[in-house]
Amino acid sequence: MLHISIIGLGLIGTSLGLALRTADPRTSRLGAVRITGYDQDRHAVSTARGCLAIDQEAHTLADAVRESQLIIVSTPPQVVRTIFAQLAAFPSLAAIVTDTASTKGQICAWARELLPQTMPFVGGHPMAGKEQSGGQAAEADLFRGAVYCLTPDPGTPQVALDVCAALVETIGARPYYIDADEHDAYVAGISHLPFLLATTLVEITSHSPAWKEMAALAASGFRDMSRLAAGDTVMHRDICLTNHRALIRWINDTIGFLLEMRHHLEQHDAERIQAVFTHAQEVRAAWLTSRSQQPGEDVFEPSPYRQKK
Amino acid sequence: MLHISIIGLGLIGTSLGLALRTADPRTSRLGAVRITGYDQDRHAVSTARGCLAIDQEAHTLADAVRESQLIIVSTPPQVVRTIFAQLAAFPSLAAIVTDTASTKGQICAWARELLPQTMPFVGGHPMAGKEQSGGQAAEADLFRGAVYCLTPDPGTPQVALDVCAALVETIGARPYYIDADEHDAYVAGISHLPFLLATTLVEITSHSPAWKEMAALAASGFRDMSRLAAGDTVMHRDICLTNHRALIRWINDTIGFLLEMRHHLEQHDAERIQAVFTHAQEVRAAWLTSRSQQPGEDVFEPSPYRQKK
Repeated sequence: MLHISIIGLGLIGTSLGLALRTADPRTSRLGAVRITGYDQDRHAVSTARGCLAIDQEAHTLADAVRESQLIIVSTPPQVVRTIFAQLAAFPSLAAIVTDTASTKGQICAWARELLPQTMPFVGGHPMAGKEQSGGQAAEADLFRGAVYCLTPDPGTPQVALDVCAALVETIGARPYYIDADEHDAYVAGISHLPFLLATTLVEITSHSPAWKEMAALAASGFRDMSRLAAGDTVMHRDICLTNHRALIRWINDTIGFLLEMRHHLEQHDAERIQAVFTHAQEVRAAWLTSRSQQPGEDVFEPSPYRQKK
Repeated sequence: MLHISIIGLGLIGTSLGLALRTADPRTSRLGAVRITGYDQDRHAVSTARGCLAIDQEAHTLADAVRESQLIIVSTPPQVVRTIFAQLAAFPSLAAIVTDTASTKGQICAWARELLPQTMPFVGGHPMAGKEQSGGQAAEADLFRGAVYCLTPDPGTPQVALDVCAALVETIGARPYYIDADEHDAYVAGISHLPFLLATTLVEITSHSPAWKEMAALAASGFRDMSRLAAGDTVMHRDICLTNHRALIRWINDTIGFLLEMRHHLEQHDAERIQAVFTHAQEVRAAWLTSRSQQPGEDVFEPSPYRQKK
């Protein structure tokens, strides 16, 4: 029986609990598990308890981790630091620690700085989610087929890595080992920049004096391109703060590209404009094809369970 | 019996034919209709014929409009000009002319310049579509509940406006009267800029040396934010060329906003960053609510028909 603590019962933490508790202990690499859940927000704990995402609830962090062998910290990035600092107060506790935050370099630095030697750390980031936040949006299938980044460093004990890989496979995801800084540079482009562009679109259009008329005309293209702006604002603020260097590089690339396109528009350069659009169309089609060929990938064919939501 | 010609049998032209032919002639404001379809591409004509979007096909533009009382030009914007010039060769033909292009100022100017007095023109733009193009993606329900812009000018005869409004209502859409230049400024922000941002995202990430690794990590956020880049490249090129002034203004606003956000990131200004994200989240939620309250609006609750696609 593996004792697991989930600290932070939002969308990801609660979905992790659901996925772990619905896995078959006879075939799962983790075997039987017992999950203790903790969140500062009592309402979040009730939600997780109500949907059977946890076996038992804890009223304090100390209670939550007392018997734990695997601690999963699933809070907004800035709160991860606080949790690490609090865990340092239990030096007699021997547990593997992992997290689920969207940025890894800063988190790994905090782990090195704050966690005692008895708590080996492996950074984690499931590449799955949706714009709704909170435990009430949790799904046991959220991670099925998804890539799950793990960012060990050369000093990470093999046993910690093995347990985290087993966790990832138990919830139906695929481990993807990557350096923390590389992770941050990449997800800044394919995840944090998309959020910022969605927010940009909403902000510049809604600050227009004609927003009321524009809102009446906006349809599915605007809806889809603004969807990410509905995401958890605290989490995205923390992502920006803990990954600002990488994000700034992508902002600069975005501005550079827009200036190029503005030039083509001013020159009425039909050939160049179409060449760019055609390239983007082809790259995206190739990307979609490559994704659909990956085993277990269901991002592009949502499961019936997810469609019901 | 109203004789209608549809010139250009892509997604919109073919969907218009389907919507008109499935409307009940006893209750429709247009009454019974007979639709002649024409496209330079013989394959597009066969597709429209095969899905019963048209009653008869024409082999030339002259054949297509010979008996027409309402001519719907549904080609990419630059081709609309060619069609208008060709229609000028039939001065004895008395027919109302409308179009479906995504930009209106330039199209209306071409209509004034090229169409004879016997052919009153009303610019039209259905705010509906999807990223797939071509008649094979057509749907009878595509316009149901959608806003359909009509851009008459002070000299437009009332009868032309009445017929176009009846067309819009017959296909289940809602007429929205708007000045052509205002239309162009607004849709540049809520439709053309979103396409450009989707293309920007694909272009800057795919030109990164690390694109291969990033592509493996990219998930549903990237997919949704790049979806519009899959759209028809010729149509979007023409949209850019016929609406470049408005689009450039939105590009400038985008760059200005990104520079502000870069500044907040450099300053680690958590409060300002979260205030921006919260504002965007609230504006989008209010917009979604306002849309769902509009009668007939189904953009946010796709019909079962559309979900099957």
